[in-house]
Amino acid sequence: MIENLDETHDPARRSFVEAANDADSDFPIQNLPVGVFSNTADSALRVGVAIGNHVLDLKKVSLASERFAEPVRNALQESSLNALFALGRSAIRDTRRIIGDMLDHGSSGNQVRRHAADLLTPMEECTFHVPTKVANYTDFYAGIYHARAAGALLTPEDPLPANYKWIPIGYHGRASSVQVGPGGVRRPLGQRPPAASGAVPSFGPCERLDFELEMGFYLATGNRLGRPIPINEASDEIVGFSLLNDWSARDIQRWEMYPLGPFLSKSFATSVSPWVVITDALAPFRTAALSRPEGDPRPLDYLFDVADQAGGGLDVHLRVLLSTEKMRSTDERAIEILTSNAKYLYWTPAQMVAHHTINGCNLQPGDLIGTGTISGPSSAELSSMLEFTGAGLNPITLANGERRGFLQDGDEITFRGRCSRQGFASIGFGSCVGRIESADLSIARANH
Amino acid sequence: MIENLDETHDPARRSFVEAANDADSDFPIQNLPVGVFSNTADSALRVGVAIGNHVLDLKKVSLASERFAEPVRNALQESSLNALFALGRSAIRDTRRIIGDMLDHGSSGNQVRRHAADLLTPMEECTFHVPTKVANYTDFYAGIYHARAAGALLTPEDPLPANYKWIPIGYHGRASSVQVGPGGVRRPLGQRPPAASGAVPSFGPCERLDFELEMGFYLATGNRLGRPIPINEASDEIVGFSLLNDWSARDIQRWEMYPLGPFLSKSFATSVSPWVVITDALAPFRTAALSRPEGDPRPLDYLFDVADQAGGGLDVHLRVLLSTEKMRSTDERAIEILTSNAKYLYWTPAQMVAHHTINGCNLQPGDLIGTGTISGPSSAELSSMLEFTGAGLNPITLANGERRGFLQDGDEITFRGRCSRQGFASIGFGSCVGRIESADLSIARANH
Repeated sequence: MIENLDETHDPARRSFVEAANDADSDFPIQNLPVGVFSNTADSALRVGVAIGNHVLDLKKVSLASERFAEPVRNALQESSLNALFALGRSAIRDTRRIIGDMLDHGSSGNQVRRHAADLLTPMEECTFHVPTKVANYTDFYAGIYHARAAGALLTPEDPLPANYKWIPIGYHGRASSVQVGPGGVRRPLGQRPPAASGAVPSFGPCERLDFELEMGFYLATGNRLGRPIPINEASDEIVGFSLLNDWSARDIQRWEMYPLGPFLSKSFATSVSPWVVITDALAPFRTAALSRPEGDPRPLDYLFDVADQAGGGLDVHLRVLLSTEKMRSTDERAIEILTSNAKYLYWTPAQMVAHHTINGCNLQPGDLIGTGTISGPSSAELSSMLEFTGAGLNPITLANGERRGFLQDGDEITFRGRCSRQGFASIGFGSCVGRIESADLSIARANH
Repeated sequence: MIENLDETHDPARRSFVEAANDADSDFPIQNLPVGVFSNTADSALRVGVAIGNHVLDLKKVSLASERFAEPVRNALQESSLNALFALGRSAIRDTRRIIGDMLDHGSSGNQVRRHAADLLTPMEECTFHVPTKVANYTDFYAGIYHARAAGALLTPEDPLPANYKWIPIGYHGRASSVQVGPGGVRRPLGQRPPAASGAVPSFGPCERLDFELEMGFYLATGNRLGRPIPINEASDEIVGFSLLNDWSARDIQRWEMYPLGPFLSKSFATSVSPWVVITDALAPFRTAALSRPEGDPRPLDYLFDVADQAGGGLDVHLRVLLSTEKMRSTDERAIEILTSNAKYLYWTPAQMVAHHTINGCNLQPGDLIGTGTISGPSSAELSSMLEFTGAGLNPITLANGERRGFLQDGDEITFRGRCSRQGFASIGFGSCVGRIESADLSIARANH
């Protein structure tokens, strides 16, 4: 049973933007994700919608149309999506429906179509920005196959933390360094573990630079301090989803993380994809929460909701592509190094929200939450280099003979995500891209 | 040797606001901390300065005076201090000097004095707000006596983490729940550790609610992503200091924190004092960094600066007061339960800034950084209940016979901080106050 379907999911629907009707477009009229963009003609940051290979300028559209309620029209004049998200899922649902009408190939789309040259910008001419002013970024650890694979490298006899099946484990991340790709990710400097216990740690560029394949989601209105969001209301607070790369410096992490968790090993950069796929667009692709094996505990009451268990998961096929400097110099295309699926998460996004707020912690509009690395059960679905190279011990060999244990300067990592289901138009997430830049050694030199 | 002294530190200087000239006032004309306030006559949030028992309205003053540079005047129209802090320490130094002239008992203060009724509001009529819109909040763990005392309870054979003397350990905190006292701190709900390994965790109100005595500091301009702040420039990025209470739910913390650090055990509330004592006002009270015992390593180069070692510490006498509901019902005054001093920090604030950015992480204007719990070497200086009651095993007995292992509902914790030095006017930090409110059990009931 698929709930919450309406005419916006009708697979027969087509847009007058022809590229949106290609079967392999990430952005058909059934998707309509929102983002923040600028272009050379207008460097002001503004809200847009992806349609095919174009971006619809929602600032202009909302000023020219009577169809948006005033709070929505005001929110669409902002340079970030926080104000729109603060209006809540119902307002966003209405907005997506109106935009769908405007982009329809039928007569309702005529007004936008007539002014297409002014309102639609080719995507390749756009610069994209972080969709919200991220006030708070939290990263979870909800991928059990990742937790088990990462744990096996550290504590093979007991790979999963004792609290793992009770608590959606999470930690606060760094909001200021959230960025949108394609963009440079500078290799961080830092302290690396001493060669032996008691020895001096070394200092320099990270030697074990990694990615982590995650999804991110954005918060709607949120809650007041001291007022938990009940599990059965939690999904109403999730506006939409994107791809998220939790870049990780494994050597720095190993040395710094006990007892208070990862800090500088993560805070140098987190990349998100430009587009926020609205939760409503994902309705056909909801799936049951990961089935808990016999013997696993039932979640505590505050984390358990029948509807969430039945349909709180997401079926998103995820891919990771790698392109090296050498590959690009010979015009080789990026190669797929792994695939996974968001359905492998042990905890649903709604459970993360309920847990995050059970202590009264207040979530705010536009807050970003990462799911944690989404590995799958098979070895082809291990979603960080740490996992699939066994902490660098078993490097992968690329088609051109290059080997990789961890990321090298110039390596570009691209995440892609796509939802497909019989009887529905496929939709996608676009891409989350970051390229490793060499470390800035000037400070190391200045100190010598 | 005390550096950076000027006429603003002249102990002979007096203000026409008489209460500022009391020897025991926290806010003589030598201090002039900034904050954000409102009052019943004007509920708009605006920037103010503390002088004696009054608040000077900087929004009004800056509009009426020609003395402030335009960027400063604009910043003083804002409802938070972020814009002022973004202008950097030099602009803030000028601002403090101008305000000092205006509040001087001599002729230069005449203009403000004539309009005192309009420009000065009695403190008790004001409501105070978080000084900045905290975009990012980071909490360090730089108090070595705390780390050792807390570690001794968990791993007595090896109380200090192996990385402690190399790394200013820190973690990202929750920015949204930073609040200004006096205010209610609601006892959080959460998962508490199972009675035995493999047993079911219990759920309910935290049973081990604690405070942590810290100082906080605020960032100036900050740095661009990818550009570390060198240690010798780091103190220029610290605008000012306040008191900070890192409320902690010890039972929730113990169960949740491995492997990724504290999360819900901290994110329900962090309290700061309303006033940001400008770094310049603290010049007479700088002290050497904590002397490292024989055998401790020299900090790595990126954390080592001669001037910082010589004067990067702070001599601030800190006090913690407790008042219970029963005490207040019998008009008993709050009692002092411990004292400590900011000079006990193993890492200086400048080292924290240099470490925080060494990986390229970008700090932003108004960011808040906590030092970590500042315990001292003696048992009277253990600065959390965890430490001074031995995790609740040795409760303290109050004068009225009440006992406390951890905090009870209705308990009010007040931090105070004060700087004194021969030949200088003493200055203080005001107070950081929070009162424990009972847990909201409605969600627990709703789930049954």
